[in-house]
Amino acid sequence: MDVKAYMTQLGQQARAASRQMAKANTGVKNAALIAIAEAIEAQREALTAANQIDLDNGRNNGLEPAMLDRLELTPARIDTMIEGLQQVAALPDPVGEISDMNYRPSGIQVGKMRVPLGVIGIIYESRPNVTVEAASLCLKSGNATILRGGSESINSNQAIARCIAQGLEQAGLPHSAVQVVETTDRAAVGELITMPAYVDVIVPRGGKGLIERISNDARVPVIKHLDGICHVYIDAEADPQKAIDIAINAKTHRYGVCNAMETLLVHSAVADLILPKLAQLYAEKGVELRGCEQTRAIIDCVSATEADWQTEYLAPILAIRVVDDLDAAIDHINQYSSQHTESIITENYTLARRFLAEVDSSSVMVNASTRFADGFEYGLGAEIGISTDKIHARGPVGLEGLTSQKYIVLGDGQIRV
Amino acid sequence: MDVKAYMTQLGQQARAASRQMAKANTGVKNAALIAIAEAIEAQREALTAANQIDLDNGRNNGLEPAMLDRLELTPARIDTMIEGLQQVAALPDPVGEISDMNYRPSGIQVGKMRVPLGVIGIIYESRPNVTVEAASLCLKSGNATILRGGSESINSNQAIARCIAQGLEQAGLPHSAVQVVETTDRAAVGELITMPAYVDVIVPRGGKGLIERISNDARVPVIKHLDGICHVYIDAEADPQKAIDIAINAKTHRYGVCNAMETLLVHSAVADLILPKLAQLYAEKGVELRGCEQTRAIIDCVSATEADWQTEYLAPILAIRVVDDLDAAIDHINQYSSQHTESIITENYTLARRFLAEVDSSSVMVNASTRFADGFEYGLGAEIGISTDKIHARGPVGLEGLTSQKYIVLGDGQIRV
Repeated sequence: MDVKAYMTQLGQQARAASRQMAKANTGVKNAALIAIAEAIEAQREALTAANQIDLDNGRNNGLEPAMLDRLELTPARIDTMIEGLQQVAALPDPVGEISDMNYRPSGIQVGKMRVPLGVIGIIYESRPNVTVEAASLCLKSGNATILRGGSESINSNQAIARCIAQGLEQAGLPHSAVQVVETTDRAAVGELITMPAYVDVIVPRGGKGLIERISNDARVPVIKHLDGICHVYIDAEADPQKAIDIAINAKTHRYGVCNAMETLLVHSAVADLILPKLAQLYAEKGVELRGCEQTRAIIDCVSATEADWQTEYLAPILAIRVVDDLDAAIDHINQYSSQHTESIITENYTLARRFLAEVDSSSVMVNASTRFADGFEYGLGAEIGISTDKIHARGPVGLEGLTSQKYIVLGDGQIRV
Repeated sequence: MDVKAYMTQLGQQARAASRQMAKANTGVKNAALIAIAEAIEAQREALTAANQIDLDNGRNNGLEPAMLDRLELTPARIDTMIEGLQQVAALPDPVGEISDMNYRPSGIQVGKMRVPLGVIGIIYESRPNVTVEAASLCLKSGNATILRGGSESINSNQAIARCIAQGLEQAGLPHSAVQVVETTDRAAVGELITMPAYVDVIVPRGGKGLIERISNDARVPVIKHLDGICHVYIDAEADPQKAIDIAINAKTHRYGVCNAMETLLVHSAVADLILPKLAQLYAEKGVELRGCEQTRAIIDCVSATEADWQTEYLAPILAIRVVDDLDAAIDHINQYSSQHTESIITENYTLARRFLAEVDSSSVMVNASTRFADGFEYGLGAEIGISTDKIHARGPVGLEGLTSQKYIVLGDGQIRV
């Protein structure tokens, strides 16, 4: 197979389909989403059978249990895929929204119209349900999509692709609006990320290694999410109960997620009061603590090294540092944060306002758990990822992040003088 | 000189300064802009003397007259620089704007805050006034800047840099908030565009060759403007006078600008009526016409080749094509446009609405000259460039395009359940 020719063909088809998708009205796009949901419901057995092939191959190839778990399409996960499609159908359509129309002295009226990005390339690892999630968000936002899933889920992804094609066709949309790459050849990824004529943006979903590789090699813009080294700062004027509730929730609600707290900063004035209680609660949950010297003078824990401040544990481990004021907390965050999500716990108005303004992360919070940094919790309906980039979209990326705004100008014959 | 070490140092200083700039309030930033204007006014003689060195070197090195013209800091251009600074000081500050604060079912309140991008690298060619224009927009939007001008304007740029440093210092802002690269070594550009730790976005200003090179080699996002192959489509239901006024203005108001029309599309039903009048007016202005076969059946002109549809002439040359309907016009535009600016001339509501929705360019107009695609005309106050990219910012990029939005979350102790 000539991978370059094949990917070029997918790209050309996607570009052509993107023009149709940009014109498709909300009703048609919603009908396609519902038809895809119905096709998945009708083809549960075929999906499960295809997934079983992937699972068998995975076991034979010695895939780790965690990978096999992510690969599996359980009945509950198929239900979730169907519900997700229905939810995306129910979301408002961002495309075509006109805003800020103002008259200028020349007599022209200038404003902005929200438009799809065009063709979105999605590169992901083993979870086959990403195929439906990503396709549905791109479809609703009027984009064409090229999906490249992990090679270990190829049969599952192809089966899902057939459901998507059926739903698109039923709604009268071009089936190349959503294309799943059929080859497992790794060269396909290299082509996909270097076709600026056919692909407008790449969204990689997966581990930091994958995302760094793609960002380095891409010749099209990448909406990327690297790591989540999130901080909670307990200020001297924190409400102790809020501080404890949030510090426990942000670390222990789920360990393997990007919005979990990895480093806790505590003001020296309240460290004696707060840290012993927290240490006891963390111990009950089996969280290993690694503290700075001041922390270790108060509670019993191992010594934190420079590496700890830079680590996204994704595990029941927490680094703790005692700081002397807000500036020291912000300095620590600016130095070590991955600019994902940080929260201050305080009752002090001025410090809360400074933290919001001065912390340069995609989500900055006051008196709330970092675990809220999520498209559903923010009301975006769904998310294609959480961007730690600074341009285009920061934080959870929903339908709006898959669009941009062009200028529109209404005149009645104006010329420039 | 160790260029890598030098550029790394500039980057580190810029990153540190960007934190100060992000905190600087509107009054302080405006005071710096005014102080820079005053420093330029006070140092007119020094600026002119430094510029004279560049002009002499340029002449000795055989620079073309057009390049020498762009390089020259005339008294009028110094006036314009001073006025530009005063205008940017008068613009609203985009930083800190909070929008869309909504309560979520969990009780948290979620919205967005507009924030600077951080460090912006500007790469430009000979015009030294860009140094002040770019620096003032980055300063007002709370960013630190590293400016790399053309080597032929190094003395002028250094003299301007001294005025900027003086103004920053006077306002109490770090002078490394605006740094002008002091070496003319080309390796400095290579370093600047591959320091993602220190530079958040690159804005290249110059010819297409420069911008393509930078886009290819950059490892940080680039806000870029490639070419402007702009179209005007005269529909069957166009008001003939508006059509003629706009077609003449869009082509002949200025030839060397990116928002000039390069291809005129005319509906076949009105070609007989419109083209002879236009041909006469263009002939009076010395515009060479290159037409499709249908055009040549109506007016006398040379034959347009495939290359003509793909060319940004930046000259008194116009390609003309007769089309049979709106779909054919949109197909032509989608195939050949550089997605800069297109305008339809029509009195038909439905066709105007379709053109606005379906043409995928950064500015789409109805009954207005493409020459309006400009930051000043759109009311942005000033522009750092016109983006033909699809993500982050499309069209004229003003202060807002030099910022992005982070999420802010206000809670009173909420945890994720």
